[in-house]
Amino acid sequence: MKRRGKNVITFPCLPVIVSSAASVGKTEGEGPLAEYFDVVNENDGVGSSTWERAEAALVKQAADLAIQKAGLQTEDINIAFAGDLLNQCTATTFGLRETQIPLAGLFGACSTFALSLIMAAAAVDAGGADKALAEASSHFCSAEKQFRYPLEYGGQRTPTAQRTVTGSGAAVIAKEGDGVKITHGSVGRITDYGITDMANMGAAMAPSAARTIADFMNDTGSRPEDFDMILTGDLGSVGSMLLTDILREEYGFDISRVHADCGNLIFDAEAQDVHAGGSGCGCSASVVCAYILPKMQRKELRKVLFAGTGALMSPLTALQGDTIPAVTHAVMLCS
Amino acid sequence: MKRRGKNVITFPCLPVIVSSAASVGKTEGEGPLAEYFDVVNENDGVGSSTWERAEAALVKQAADLAIQKAGLQTEDINIAFAGDLLNQCTATTFGLRETQIPLAGLFGACSTFALSLIMAAAAVDAGGADKALAEASSHFCSAEKQFRYPLEYGGQRTPTAQRTVTGSGAAVIAKEGDGVKITHGSVGRITDYGITDMANMGAAMAPSAARTIADFMNDTGSRPEDFDMILTGDLGSVGSMLLTDILREEYGFDISRVHADCGNLIFDAEAQDVHAGGSGCGCSASVVCAYILPKMQRKELRKVLFAGTGALMSPLTALQGDTIPAVTHAVMLCS
Repeated sequence: MKRRGKNVITFPCLPVIVSSAASVGKTEGEGPLAEYFDVVNENDGVGSSTWERAEAALVKQAADLAIQKAGLQTEDINIAFAGDLLNQCTATTFGLRETQIPLAGLFGACSTFALSLIMAAAAVDAGGADKALAEASSHFCSAEKQFRYPLEYGGQRTPTAQRTVTGSGAAVIAKEGDGVKITHGSVGRITDYGITDMANMGAAMAPSAARTIADFMNDTGSRPEDFDMILTGDLGSVGSMLLTDILREEYGFDISRVHADCGNLIFDAEAQDVHAGGSGCGCSASVVCAYILPKMQRKELRKVLFAGTGALMSPLTALQGDTIPAVTHAVMLCS
Repeated sequence: MKRRGKNVITFPCLPVIVSSAASVGKTEGEGPLAEYFDVVNENDGVGSSTWERAEAALVKQAADLAIQKAGLQTEDINIAFAGDLLNQCTATTFGLRETQIPLAGLFGACSTFALSLIMAAAAVDAGGADKALAEASSHFCSAEKQFRYPLEYGGQRTPTAQRTVTGSGAAVIAKEGDGVKITHGSVGRITDYGITDMANMGAAMAPSAARTIADFMNDTGSRPEDFDMILTGDLGSVGSMLLTDILREEYGFDISRVHADCGNLIFDAEAQDVHAGGSGCGCSASVVCAYILPKMQRKELRKVLFAGTGALMSPLTALQGDTIPAVTHAVMLCS
């Protein structure tokens, strides 16, 4: 591991994502990426008696499958870096409890999967692990209940609101093997533009994404055109527009030709009535694991900068009138 | 970084804790360790309008002070590993927001400070950071409100209950310098003995602590007598008794002569009416930063195995009838 500039670390051993898998819910299975997911659960209960247990079941499904696809057993995995949106990260804990993999719990809200990829790559690159698991999850019903209103209340959603993805994505990172390589990582600083609207997280996160992406370009001497894709997860449609504007106007980078957002990719916003797109730790985790990484493996994409964005408020800080701090962690993927 | 056995990693560069600081609340300032804390706040509001903001203020106080004691500026710190007990880890986010240090959020409940030391040591050892901050916090009032009852309700506590510590501890880890060295780390696996009593976390965590400590001894070929102290944080009085019993009976290790627990050290259980002792991420963080590390620096202790214990349930999983999974991360400190 080496530092590059103020914000970037490089992984000279080029850790490899040797497998990845995603397990999602019914609505995700009716969206544009349906055919790519490893498991589409027929109903969002995932055979469980509570929404929280359902989310834990998704975590287990994706982890088991990723490990199996790598031709490994759970005991081959030296460490897992994982997290979710639930209070006390219980989907991760209960989902991975049976695996008995050493667990380093992470919290980065919707940026968690990018952070887990960075940490897993760092552990493998530095020799702390031969094989590491990176995972994140979210569930529409457990998130609505915790962050917004009971589903039964039938609350109306604003046009800027995003829909939390029901899904989990898991990836196995190893020293050697066939797969997409993780070359750089950047752990973000907190950016807070003073947004207080919990129904407009895209606006809260876009300035943070712009800053991490611009820092990455400057520290590595790159330009947007060096990438096949700059992928944010998850700004949705509102945040994505803001991101390209801020990057152009404040930092002088035009990413409009290469930008994509996991929150825009996972749903058909119009047909599926999801307003500004998808969100939640499971959104970028499942899109990257099921759609982006296989696409890179097929060489349809060679160089992707994945910037995971997270809004770090809680319902309580929002009620107390605090603004929404955001963080963006970036990871560079090459095939 | 090298792997040793199944559960331990070593840090060949011997990352150094070049400074540490702790800021605590009024009750902690009336306990046996009062004289050691860097800041004892006169009241637990810490000049803030909410308990959550008070906890964030403790985070800021401890971080600022640790960085200042190291003779550094915040911009010298390349990364912070930190977490707390609040939903969405908001004490950490809001406490460190102004510092602009890249933030990798962690979740490990009361084991968080041990995990943050491991991650910070790993980042420095591997060359990903020159200087890293490790921090954790908790606050009695924000925790009671979130995990138990409103303070105004005046609920009675059981004899096995622990009191969440109001405090934050922060440490700066660097490649070189004068201070205690971090030689080994061990990220724990989840252990669940089926305990469901949220008022007896010591019992839920003791089996996990026993397992991580035994694994550490076996993987490194050590014996309890090789250590000046085996420090758990925070089992309290009930969990501590269980730990020594389990380690003796199930694993054949007698740690009774060298065992200490942060939850027992921080309060005078009888005089301060705290029942089974202290708990919370801030307990081990403030005891290690203010009391143990300086003691090691003065060579009154040379070799300490610090095992941070965490109970990973949420109030919701408890209400849903789930058991309490626990995790223990261990870190070996030498002076």
